[in-house]
Amino acid sequence: MGMASYALASRDCQAQDTIVEINTSHKKIFIGEGYCTVIAGPCAVEGIEEYLAIARILQTSGVHVLRGGVFKPRTSPYSFKGLGSEGLKIISEARDITGLPVITEIMDVRDLDLLYENVDVLQIGSRNMQNFTLLEEVGKIDKPVMLKRGLSATIEEWLLAAEYILSGGNRRVILCERGIRTFEHFTRNTVDIGAVALLKQLSHLPIIVDPSHATGRWKMVSPIARAAVAAGADGIMVEVHQNPDQALSDGKQSLTPQNFDKMFKKIIQLAELDGKIIQ
Amino acid sequence: MGMASYALASRDCQAQDTIVEINTSHKKIFIGEGYCTVIAGPCAVEGIEEYLAIARILQTSGVHVLRGGVFKPRTSPYSFKGLGSEGLKIISEARDITGLPVITEIMDVRDLDLLYENVDVLQIGSRNMQNFTLLEEVGKIDKPVMLKRGLSATIEEWLLAAEYILSGGNRRVILCERGIRTFEHFTRNTVDIGAVALLKQLSHLPIIVDPSHATGRWKMVSPIARAAVAAGADGIMVEVHQNPDQALSDGKQSLTPQNFDKMFKKIIQLAELDGKIIQ
Amino acid sequence: MGMASYALASRDCQAQDTIVEINTSHKKIFIGEGYCTVIAGPCAVEGIEEYLAIARILQTSGVHVLRGGVFKPRTSPYSFKGLGSEGLKIISEARDITGLPVITEIMDVRDLDLLYENVDVLQIGSRNMQNFTLLEEVGKIDKPVMLKRGLSATIEEWLLAAEYILSGGNRRVILCERGIRTFEHFTRNTVDIGAVALLKQLSHLPIIVDPSHATGRWKMVSPIARAAVAAGADGIMVEVHQNPDQALSDGKQSLTPQNFDKMFKKIIQLAELDGKIIQ
Amino acid sequence: MGMASYALASRDCQAQDTIVEINTSHKKIFIGEGYCTVIAGPCAVEGIEEYLAIARILQTSGVHVLRGGVFKPRTSPYSFKGLGSEGLKIISEARDITGLPVITEIMDVRDLDLLYENVDVLQIGSRNMQNFTLLEEVGKIDKPVMLKRGLSATIEEWLLAAEYILSGGNRRVILCERGIRTFEHFTRNTVDIGAVALLKQLSHLPIIVDPSHATGRWKMVSPIARAAVAAGADGIMVEVHQNPDQALSDGKQSLTPQNFDKMFKKIIQLAELDGKIIQ
Repeated sequence: MGMASYALASRDCQAQDTIVEINTSHKKIFIGEGYCTVIAGPCAVEGIEEYLAIARILQTSGVHVLRGGVFKPRTSPYSFKGLGSEGLKIISEARDITGLPVITEIMDVRDLDLLYENVDVLQIGSRNMQNFTLLEEVGKIDKPVMLKRGLSATIEEWLLAAEYILSGGNRRVILCERGIRTFEHFTRNTVDIGAVALLKQLSHLPIIVDPSHATGRWKMVSPIARAAVAAGADGIMVEVHQNPDQALSDGKQSLTPQNFDKMFKKIIQLAELDGKIIQ
Repeated sequence: MGMASYALASRDCQAQDTIVEINTSHKKIFIGEGYCTVIAGPCAVEGIEEYLAIARILQTSGVHVLRGGVFKPRTSPYSFKGLGSEGLKIISEARDITGLPVITEIMDVRDLDLLYENVDVLQIGSRNMQNFTLLEEVGKIDKPVMLKRGLSATIEEWLLAAEYILSGGNRRVILCERGIRTFEHFTRNTVDIGAVALLKQLSHLPIIVDPSHATGRWKMVSPIARAAVAAGADGIMVEVHQNPDQALSDGKQSLTPQNFDKMFKKIIQLAELDGKIIQ
Repeated sequence: MGMASYALASRDCQAQDTIVEINTSHKKIFIGEGYCTVIAGPCAVEGIEEYLAIARILQTSGVHVLRGGVFKPRTSPYSFKGLGSEGLKIISEARDITGLPVITEIMDVRDLDLLYENVDVLQIGSRNMQNFTLLEEVGKIDKPVMLKRGLSATIEEWLLAAEYILSGGNRRVILCERGIRTFEHFTRNTVDIGAVALLKQLSHLPIIVDPSHATGRWKMVSPIARAAVAAGADGIMVEVHQNPDQALSDGKQSLTPQNFDKMFKKIIQLAELDGKIIQ
Repeated sequence: MGMASYALASRDCQAQDTIVEINTSHKKIFIGEGYCTVIAGPCAVEGIEEYLAIARILQTSGVHVLRGGVFKPRTSPYSFKGLGSEGLKIISEARDITGLPVITEIMDVRDLDLLYENVDVLQIGSRNMQNFTLLEEVGKIDKPVMLKRGLSATIEEWLLAAEYILSGGNRRVILCERGIRTFEHFTRNTVDIGAVALLKQLSHLPIIVDPSHATGRWKMVSPIARAAVAAGADGIMVEVHQNPDQALSDGKQSLTPQNFDKMFKKIIQLAELDGKIIQ
């Protein structure tokens, strides 16, 4: 493939794996080669009681990072768009209570300061993978950024999007494979497990897989999470909801806490087989 | 297809075609059923002399709207990103001199006031078709917005993106088909002429075709422009450059002024055959 | 693109356009540069009376070649697969009565002799574009072959499939664009009108467009047929049925004879504007 | 998804997993739930000495089924198409010497008797997944058939292709995921590991993954093979060549015997973790 166009993201530029450190008041969490990191939570923050309850349950299972959407990118202007800054207070409180780091999505550059204050990892969603304005802004901060792959993005385009952030000065970039669009209509997207193996060759950046969005079917989440770890992914991000049937978004792809716990144990077993550090 | 999820954009909601009026100090330009509107100019504004020269040439050919990128979305952070606000002054001056309305792309919500003052039509590019923050902001203004189709967007997603703008109160939305991503590697994208015919059934919004980006090959621009008009498109948008070989971006898909003029005449001939008003 | 891998199909090999001559007892029909050829008929031959009736109607409209499927490739083994050799007798009789040449699809190499005797043009369907055994066999005969593009085939793969036939000695190959698979679900396929313009540059072979299969919606057939001719296609192939609602296959994309006649007149008008010979 | 259109292939029709038995004079091999079966060999049979040598090496590693192409479907008519019936004698001899069952691809219905005599499993390649004539013929025999997924086939189309074979009376169908076409150009295809998890829900048929064709890059073969087994695949099929650099086809995706052996051991380890029977 010749000289990579994504210089800073390439392994040619940096042979050693990047291990992203997430600092919280309680403990440090690492994402990168040698670790297996599990991020979990509901698709959207729906209310304070529900969120704190699920956060405590996930903490008990052993989850490393909490997720929860407050600004939701929705295909239709008429869909539920998240609780906004109200939701931000809720995840911030869950962080204080559990001591776990939290991740949420940023959609608007004007929200950067607010999000910077309240969360530990900023997520750039699929639809914004090529929102270059947003990439440039998160490239200037000193917090980890999880960059989801665009719905039809090639690996090169994805690494070039990462390059926008890296070249701005922020080297704490985590890639997240969340399925690509294909002709398949039985699943929401098609998970590209090959991307994990390929990225480990091409780049030093950590790579996480999101089997919930990638499949859209909760029964596929556990096998795909296992496949991701077996292929070398540095962790997974999954959606968990107390009552998937009543979720305001993405219920069909959400695990119950019980099924999540079963999956978590299998993932840890596979990670141990590979000699990974369990945090 | 049942009740459309894109209510305001659907023909069920409004049977009559939307005709977008573009006001300038000199004359009115219309885009919509019954008209054939030609938008042309270089991919990027490269300098004041070059831009004013091409603007005058295009005015002589009979072009209705001038294009010129000043904020350029680029896959790589290392590519030429346009002249920015400096470029904006240039297209604004071309507008004053020629009396033609101008269109340019907006990438950042924070640039909205600046662009509002200086241009007649705001373009939302492919990569920002689902930048919902940006869609919401241009939905609040009283200037026409040209919404380009996302690289892998379905027609429904595209109409839902238009719905974001319409539901904000701005009813002057123009759709622009610019090719979709397919497996073909001989062309930059694959132009979806079927989208023109389909949109005329589903929606009342005007539809423009951009054969330059859709093909990436200047020799294909004229046949595809003709096909677009024959299929019922309300106009075309094409890239023209005095020296395509030396263009800072998209030279391979740019027509010379001579070839543009030939194409323009054929387009007008087809439009007249269909009984369209020539502005 | 360097030296073409599809040597015999390339324009580098033969600058002059191939014009395929179809011989029947009554008259000669040509497909290629300078002509506009219209092929029409029902998707499948359903019975002798119905087929002879539609054949006569189409003859009156001025159609140049009759189509009618007798061996139907079906995604499900439980769908109607055509009348087989019984259907072949019917189209052969329609040929005798109208004097028009007929085209039908070949699926099995073992049917070659039977089809050779009864039809004037053999069609290779999309699903068999890379059935290399079949391509090799039709490469040995002296009858025109219409090669439909595979559902997800690139232009290069399509030309290489043509190369199989050409290199076998049969130079009478006609390409047929019938839509490619994309993410769009409002239409059956996505018609690639750009392929017409591109093929005219890359190859000397004639190119026909099938707007019926390409769209799957009869209301789109006429605009796409016009777009095809405006882009430079050498003709079109469309499905026509007396009672589209009762068709055994593809009713939704079939024109009534009345709508076909309207479309035919518009196509001829466009072809005349381009100075094409009307047969 | 309602009532499945692929009745015989669906789990609704048969809740119990199909376990395909491959009989040879020496021993029985099983493919299906509870087993992990490894198929390996060179892409194409290139000569008797080379093939017998690699067959013995693979036998020593513990491979369960030998592969080797003798009729090769090639995109270009000018590429190496395999040794044909000469190659068939070679794999048949390897079968006699090693006692291992052999699999090869059938492209032409006229070769069926010859292949039936000489091989234990017939493979239908991607390009022939919808060669319905061929599917019908292998549906009439009493030998296992491995059906590769078409390059852009949906799961439903693939299961309907299997249905052609099943409804003909042959119930010994093995599915093989070999990657689908996507926009990615760094890999040959994109492996769909999600298909494994989905098929285990929808169907009772065994599913094998081919990481060699799916990726086109030998360094990705081992991680993808592991991912496949972790996701629940019933086995893998990989390409192995003594001198990948000198292979007549697919060298870039072939493992050396040494790398194959390492991968084989890891696969077995994962299969044992899942409680699978090692044959």
